[in-house]
Amino acid sequence: MSGRTDHATEPGARGERADDDLVGLDEIRAAAERLRGVPRRTPLHPTELGGDGEEGRGRPVWLKCESLQHGGAFKVRGAYNFVSRLSPEEREAGLITFSSGNHAQGVAYAAREFGLEALIVMPEDAPEVKREATRALGGRIVFEGYTTEERKGRALEIAAEEGYTVVPPFDHRDIIAGQGTVGLEIVEQLREDARRSGGDPDEAASSPGLVVVPIGGGGLLSGTAAAIRDLAPECRVVGVEPEGAASMKASLDAGEPVTLDEVDSIADGLKPVRPGDVTFRHVRELVDEVVTVTDRAIREATVWCAREHLVVEPSGAATVAALASGRVPGHPLDPAEGATVAVLSGGNVDMDLLGRWLIEA
Amino acid sequence: MSGRTDHATEPGARGERADDDLVGLDEIRAAAERLRGVPRRTPLHPTELGGDGEEGRGRPVWLKCESLQHGGAFKVRGAYNFVSRLSPEEREAGLITFSSGNHAQGVAYAAREFGLEALIVMPEDAPEVKREATRALGGRIVFEGYTTEERKGRALEIAAEEGYTVVPPFDHRDIIAGQGTVGLEIVEQLREDARRSGGDPDEAASSPGLVVVPIGGGGLLSGTAAAIRDLAPECRVVGVEPEGAASMKASLDAGEPVTLDEVDSIADGLKPVRPGDVTFRHVRELVDEVVTVTDRAIREATVWCAREHLVVEPSGAATVAALASGRVPGHPLDPAEGATVAVLSGGNVDMDLLGRWLIEA
Repeated sequence: MSGRTDHATEPGARGERADDDLVGLDEIRAAAERLRGVPRRTPLHPTELGGDGEEGRGRPVWLKCESLQHGGAFKVRGAYNFVSRLSPEEREAGLITFSSGNHAQGVAYAAREFGLEALIVMPEDAPEVKREATRALGGRIVFEGYTTEERKGRALEIAAEEGYTVVPPFDHRDIIAGQGTVGLEIVEQLREDARRSGGDPDEAASSPGLVVVPIGGGGLLSGTAAAIRDLAPECRVVGVEPEGAASMKASLDAGEPVTLDEVDSIADGLKPVRPGDVTFRHVRELVDEVVTVTDRAIREATVWCAREHLVVEPSGAATVAALASGRVPGHPLDPAEGATVAVLSGGNVDMDLLGRWLIEA
Repeated sequence: MSGRTDHATEPGARGERADDDLVGLDEIRAAAERLRGVPRRTPLHPTELGGDGEEGRGRPVWLKCESLQHGGAFKVRGAYNFVSRLSPEEREAGLITFSSGNHAQGVAYAAREFGLEALIVMPEDAPEVKREATRALGGRIVFEGYTTEERKGRALEIAAEEGYTVVPPFDHRDIIAGQGTVGLEIVEQLREDARRSGGDPDEAASSPGLVVVPIGGGGLLSGTAAAIRDLAPECRVVGVEPEGAASMKASLDAGEPVTLDEVDSIADGLKPVRPGDVTFRHVRELVDEVVTVTDRAIREATVWCAREHLVVEPSGAATVAALASGRVPGHPLDPAEGATVAVLSGGNVDMDLLGRWLIEA
């Protein structure tokens, strides 16, 4: 690994999506090199789900805990990779982005690492926990509307006026390649665990067999699927959306990205009204299935995670919800055929809300 | 490593504490071999505490997350190591133990792994979460009194009548050696992290410089200190007790184990009225300092952990409480001199209680 792909030095490659190829393993490995020592390598936590296995045990499932990432979500991976590849001029112009919260913290964290200023356009209903965390990382916030389209419009406007460099939340191959390091780590960590436990790292059981990932704009799913496709070709990759915000599913059905008229879900990180163009293409080509879950199942999964001693936000728990409510075809998978992995994408839940759910459960 | 020490095959060595030596690194390594693939290797999670460091950053601290262990606490390590070393006859007699909760789950888990029956004597006020979890692992529960001495008496009585083998909660070298694998892992994981982040695994910064461990009966502290003393001789090891249940501190002051008349703390796992004889000797010889914390600081630390996306019980958060409330001499330690590590010993907090604390915070 050189730490740079050819792509990185191609003039004009940045941001123009001239390249129709999907993000490849080489780009994700290059991102992992750039990211070395910056994002945490989050735990891949082995546990059991449900109680219908042998001797009252549940079905084995590995939780990839991006809730324990810097900024409380996976977003720093893509943001840092993107900023790493900016020219000195683009960096010094300052960074701007638009986000419902977690990408804001990812950009603020990456900006701080580079000593840069970051301005974030957030929706007016962004959870307090995400506002505070963004400010704590030195990010400045501007509030605008409620949908991705509204805050994106405002961010582009400010960028045009002030010359800031826009850090896209998901629809860019450098963002996707950064998020794809989650997929790389899943494969590496399963092998390492097998080796440590005295198992065979080369047998199917030590490799992912079913990986479930939440879908907001689709960046995490696109990157993870790109890594897994190459490293574990037999693995099924499944994306999860809330029933009330299933823009990727609607787009797949339509054969092109569509914009939903309205979205409604407790999973505030999974509510973009439209997937990206680049992410849509990745999901269509690389992902086996996109399924939906109810808000009720998401809430139950959030409480289940707390009982597993992990504070996870509703968006992050959507994958557990999908497995637990029987929405994932192929689950439960025979562990001999491969590991079942649920990505917990973030942990930034309002403490008040979580407290109420814990008491009412 | 052979997986067996000489000690293991010495007739009469078991349970008699004829041996005055402290538990050594060889016994802990042998325990680690026996435990391979059974307890989880829990995450060593890097984060920051407080906001008085550079650029508003906190002081780096690593959290050893035994809250994410099987049964929600470190206890399975010692219990499994102890049961591994029983004779077939001792095992088949069935296991009995006494515990405020976490050791119960550790024993129940270990028993299930060996296909054995486990009977647990618990205090009448054991948190519901610990009762349920013990039952879910197949443990049978008998309730008796409120103090360690009461439940210990009842367990010994039943063991004498029914011929069960007693699994001691802390005061035995096989238990201590099992818990000591926490110390081994801390040293290994810091080195691995340095290697992965491009640092030098052999420099002081990649080694523990200050390790803080909660004290119930003292088994976890004894084992962790025994491992650390050998592997990182310069490291300071500090034990933490609640102000209202400081039996180890009282014993160190008296020069011998003493029994407190009463104990009172929200940290239900740290309330034995008397340390063990073996654990007392280990703490006196191997630990640099024992400090106390208030229940208020413990509660604040429990909420802090939840904001860090970890569900930790009050007993487990006592170490963070000690660091955050300035009770640990030598903290903050210059990271160049070694890593600061707080062991989060368990996560089994009642969801109702945690919910209330999150709302009130």
